[in-house]
Amino acid sequence: MATDRTTATIHDVAALAGVSTSSVSNVLNGRTDKLSAQTWSRVEDAIRTLSFSPNRVARQLKTGHTPMLGLLVPSTANPMYGQLALNIEAAAQRRFNYRLLLGNTHRDKQQEARMFDDLLSFGVRAVIVISSLDDERHLEKAVSRGLAVVSYDRGAGGDTHSRVDHMSPDNYQAGYLAADHLISHGHRQLAFLLPHGKTVSRGEKIEGFRERVSLCPGASYSASVVEGQVSEAFGDSELADLGFAMASQVAALRPMPTGIVTVNDMLAIGLMSGLTRLGLRVPEDVSVIGMDGLQVSGFVNPGLTSVAMPLAEMADAMVERAIQRSTNPDLPPSDFLFQPVLIARQSVAAPARARKTATTL
Amino acid sequence: MATDRTTATIHDVAALAGVSTSSVSNVLNGRTDKLSAQTWSRVEDAIRTLSFSPNRVARQLKTGHTPMLGLLVPSTANPMYGQLALNIEAAAQRRFNYRLLLGNTHRDKQQEARMFDDLLSFGVRAVIVISSLDDERHLEKAVSRGLAVVSYDRGAGGDTHSRVDHMSPDNYQAGYLAADHLISHGHRQLAFLLPHGKTVSRGEKIEGFRERVSLCPGASYSASVVEGQVSEAFGDSELADLGFAMASQVAALRPMPTGIVTVNDMLAIGLMSGLTRLGLRVPEDVSVIGMDGLQVSGFVNPGLTSVAMPLAEMADAMVERAIQRSTNPDLPPSDFLFQPVLIARQSVAAPARARKTATTL
Repeated sequence: MATDRTTATIHDVAALAGVSTSSVSNVLNGRTDKLSAQTWSRVEDAIRTLSFSPNRVARQLKTGHTPMLGLLVPSTANPMYGQLALNIEAAAQRRFNYRLLLGNTHRDKQQEARMFDDLLSFGVRAVIVISSLDDERHLEKAVSRGLAVVSYDRGAGGDTHSRVDHMSPDNYQAGYLAADHLISHGHRQLAFLLPHGKTVSRGEKIEGFRERVSLCPGASYSASVVEGQVSEAFGDSELADLGFAMASQVAALRPMPTGIVTVNDMLAIGLMSGLTRLGLRVPEDVSVIGMDGLQVSGFVNPGLTSVAMPLAEMADAMVERAIQRSTNPDLPPSDFLFQPVLIARQSVAAPARARKTATTL
Repeated sequence: MATDRTTATIHDVAALAGVSTSSVSNVLNGRTDKLSAQTWSRVEDAIRTLSFSPNRVARQLKTGHTPMLGLLVPSTANPMYGQLALNIEAAAQRRFNYRLLLGNTHRDKQQEARMFDDLLSFGVRAVIVISSLDDERHLEKAVSRGLAVVSYDRGAGGDTHSRVDHMSPDNYQAGYLAADHLISHGHRQLAFLLPHGKTVSRGEKIEGFRERVSLCPGASYSASVVEGQVSEAFGDSELADLGFAMASQVAALRPMPTGIVTVNDMLAIGLMSGLTRLGLRVPEDVSVIGMDGLQVSGFVNPGLTSVAMPLAEMADAMVERAIQRSTNPDLPPSDFLFQPVLIARQSVAAPARARKTATTL
């Protein structure tokens, strides 16, 4: 099998596709800007038909870089990043014949910087970073050392000198949509839950949430922002545990919120479990909305209403951008937003106003 | 930051640790068999203290291999493999300073073989493969081409010529424990649910399940094995959807099972949701047990009883073995089993014998 594949050469691919070997080389090296979509697809078909597999080391020696894409995520134990890693790897493989180098960095700047060092020394020239940190100086530094960096889950934030590409769901809009859904169901006591440690994306979600609340003239609103306690035990791998633990923080709020937005789905799933343990029913006593749109959120009980992010579409765009930039560093940096969509399930209902919160606790 | 790190040399590390530079080199290249645990840990401390980061390309030229570990998983969209990828990456980083090259291969032999080609051409010499396929000839071939291969989730199966290392949870025992838990709660109509497509691990789980049922003398048992329909839509990324869809297959069984074992947790989570949709209560009408011990399983409603696998321990052992073997190909192949543990939650109760199954449907 492997023997068959290695017998095909770049010349065979070019002949079958009816293009020059330099066009095949452009496809192999991800230089999308140099080819029409039609040529690209003819070359891909020929590569598939001939099961052509170029020698990677030879390519690396020739081009000076490795056909690998770096991916830094907070933790693949959060199914959000497991799903995104799947989508990113599929796009890198299918479209560019790139492999994926994965690091779990727990939003730690030092770990991210160390991974950049390693990527550079491996000859990797393109990386997608998921952490949404406020300070991106280590990302800018990586760009100046030769890495094409796509930062996920925040914008450039008005930094016109940034050389990092930014791609993000519209987090402000996500917060706005979530608050809007609760308000349109009649909720007036709202809360927003997040882990300890603000990131840019968390800040933007809170801003959208608050903006929607402020747009209700004359109504009396409470909109608490509840941050999880500092704890080593609750990182990106333990969000459901944190949500479970935060249920008692929520139940102690006065006025007790009837509608809660959580910054991600895993936190919401843990929270619903914790509220149930305290004798509070979702959605009869408390409504809950998550963000991410995880698959599993459709199967918990009650089904979790969630603001979903277009993962496959974002994965495609990030992979394309990172690889394009690594072959053409002169492209102007991009700053793209993707629109989220609210998926209504069973975890939101109208509040039971008659009920006195005191009696349930 | 990066500048500080690169100023430290292998000689500085050796001096601080009070060992020879060749000992430092052994640590950097994962040759655990050549060092005492104490020396190993002194060198690791010195590396950390000095923030020492060796030049990877120079190392590759010197040793002929890249400090990268390949990991092939069915799909990181299943939180089981997202968690395992996290544990494996942490062990590879912490203990050997290796990075992780990740591929989602959907248990497809062709995709696995293609990834082996790429790993070899990148200079990678160690890989962990999670797929539990019956036919491992492509793995044996990869070994003969110079890869150290650890196969997860099945044993060598009595193949004394195998040059692949095998590490697996005791899947037979997992099936046995799950059946035992249901039987000890009084269940006599049991079913075992799995996706279409038997793997070795699935077969072993069924065997343990059946064995436990057969040990009940005189009792009248039904033990169905229900396989999900063939469908492109239900791979390792869509297990919860499959479980949801299989609820009606289960409800149509006669006698209808009162206790159900699923081959993994995501299938169980989807199944419980589907059963609820059909008006069946878990555990009052049907008890459900999953396998994997996912974090999220503790937070669904009802909490899912599950046979948990010791992921962190297995990850450590697999990483150590793969890297050791890549530097010492003469080690005899290993065949290790890890013991699972049943975690009892709320999804199992005694069957309601009085209830006629017909009235609920």
